[in-house]
Formats: sequence, C-alpha cells, structure tokens
Amino acid sequence: MNSHHAFVGGRSGAWRVSAQKTIAGEGLPTVTHIDLHRPPPAALPDSARWQLRGFTSNLRYAHRDELEVLRTRQEALGRPSSRCAALIPIRKTPEWWAMPQDERRALFETVSQHTRIGLDYLPAIARQLHHARDLGEPFDFLTWFEFAPEHAPAFDELLARLRATPEWSYVDREIEFRLEATP
Amino acid sequence: MNSHHAFVGGRSGAWRVSAQKTIAGEGLPTVTHIDLHRPPPAALPDSARWQLRGFTSNLRYAHRDELEVLRTRQEALGRPSSRCAALIPIRKTPEWWAMPQDERRALFETVSQHTRIGLDYLPAIARQLHHARDLGEPFDFLTWFEFAPEHAPAFDELLARLRATPEWSYVDREIEFRLEATP
Repeated sequence: MNSHHAFVGGRSGAWRVSAQKTIAGEGLPTVTHIDLHRPPPAALPDSARWQLRGFTSNLRYAHRDELEVLRTRQEALGRPSSRCAALIPIRKTPEWWAMPQDERRALFETVSQHTRIGLDYLPAIARQLHHARDLGEPFDFLTWFEFAPEHAPAFDELLARLRATPEWSYVDREIEFRLEATP
Repeated sequence: MNSHHAFVGGRSGAWRVSAQKTIAGEGLPTVTHIDLHRPPPAALPDSARWQLRGFTSNLRYAHRDELEVLRTRQEALGRPSSRCAALIPIRKTPEWWAMPQDERRALFETVSQHTRIGLDYLPAIARQLHHARDLGEPFDFLTWFEFAPEHAPAFDELLARLRATPEWSYVDREIEFRLEATP
C-alpha cells in the first residue's frame, strides 16, 4: 500500500517499447525503453527523457462484493509468463474531479462497469493502478498491465471496451505504451 | 485543488500554540508555534522541531446533496475574525483502509454523520482537510480549523460529537493543537 514508483522513459530499462500511441491530448517524447523505479530516483538518470510518478493507494470506488471477486480472481504482478506489459497514463477533465463521490461512482461502475469489465480478463490481465494527480503530475492515473503474449488480443479488447464507456468521455489525455520484457 | 502544504512546528510562526494534547497514540514533540508553508520547505527551518505534510484533494465521500449544502454554507479560510485555529492530525487503523468504499462511506456518513455534524457548525467553524497518508507521512489526515474566539465552545462541542462516532473507533492516533494568531 502507498508505495511510490516512477516509470522512467529513455534508452534503457527492463521493458522495451514495442508501440507508443497518443490516444488523446498531448503526447510524450518518444522512448525505446521504460524502467520502473521504487522509490522514484532522486535525479533523472542520464539515459532518461522523462519520468512519470505515482503511488498505489486504497480502493476509491469498489464495493464489498466487487472487492471479494477481485481478490478471488486476480493474480500478482511479476509472473514469469508475463512477457508483455502496458503502461497507460490518463488524465481526466476538471468536470470529473468536481463531481461528488456518488456521481463519480455511478459513472465509473453503475454506468460504465469499469470493475466488471476488468474482471472478465482476470486472471490473464494483471493490473496495478498508480495515482498521480495528487502529486501535481501531468497525468491523473498510471495503469500498469502485465500478461502473456497469447493474451495480447484479449488486452486489445479490454482497452476497446473501456474506451467505449461513458466514463472515458471524461478522459482528455491518454497515451498507450505497449511493452516487451527485455531478455 | 491538490496544493501541498507543510505544518511546521517549532519556536516561531504565524500561530501560537495555546494547548497541545495527545488524544490517542504516540504524541509529537512539544512546540510553541506552528507555521504554514505552501509548498513545503525544501529543508526544515532551524527553529523547527518537525513538519507534517499534506495535500488538498477531491472529495472522497460527499454525495451531491451534501456537496450543495456545503457550498452554500461554508466560508473561506483567512477571515479576519478567525483569531483561533486548530490543527488535528489523525491516523486511522489498517482495518479502515482495507475496507471497500461502500463500507467506509457507510461508517463515515450513514452511521457517523461526519459531514452532517460539520454542517451544524457552518459557517462559524471553517475547515480544510489535508491528505497525508499517500505521502507516507505518520498521520493520514491533517485537518485545519479556523474560528472566532467566541466560537471556541462550539468547536469543543464539534470535536466531542465527532469523537463519539463509530467512525472514531478507527482512529488510533490523534493530536490536538489549539492555536491563536500571533499579533
């Protein structure tokens, strides 16, 4: 809980970038590798072009029944079979953040079934959410996904379903990094 | 939104400590003054004994109807009449943080009426919540209150009512600083 990480983009790292796509809003300088640092480095490494910082935290929307199913089905990060990963930084609009909790929850789950959609891809697609907005970072969330190469089509489908939800109309900046573990 | 502050305890500052009480758990070194810094200082001032850091953020529990009433009744910090203030750092138990959102919301408002109780003291008692847990700080929340001297008894009553709620059974560390504006 509450551990701080930095995703460092540059010319070296544990994950090779196989694709970098700007989905919405401003892009980020192109990089060939992404490396994870925990905690964030005191100074940006020489080979780095940027870093994105975030922290894990308590769940903000899940109800008891959803939490129980999540706990039953999800597997940890770092599985040897997970040779593929993705990093998806997103930012939501000021309108989203001005909404009270009940309206954000309704959009997130009742209307958009964010948790429900993710459950359909467990345990194949493991994920970890990192919060960034409260650090004054350029993105609000950095979501990290890990999966085996044969599950890449399922991951594409997961992304397509999430991006088609009403919740996603509040996303005004989004970048998709597809990654492969370096040998 | 999302501005980072530090409450610096030491021998000088804008607020003189009229009382420092440890309500639950471990205390903090005694100080005579508390100063606010925004953003937090890069290094602790020479006259300081400690600092507590936190950030303002979006509302985590309030529903639309509660938000509307809050917006109607509350007044800003910094009123000239607010010669009294209080800083109350609290920490909640691991059990609290492991609960899903619906159970925390139920304890916070349905059962304990946290927002409802605060409304009874508006606009007299102005408040600002600062989140600290996600920074790895020793407390989870730092709440700052401001009020005129004649409302000190009302503030005492507000604290007594909150501390009597079921929500407060999840508070395992709490310190109360009562403050007066320095001339």
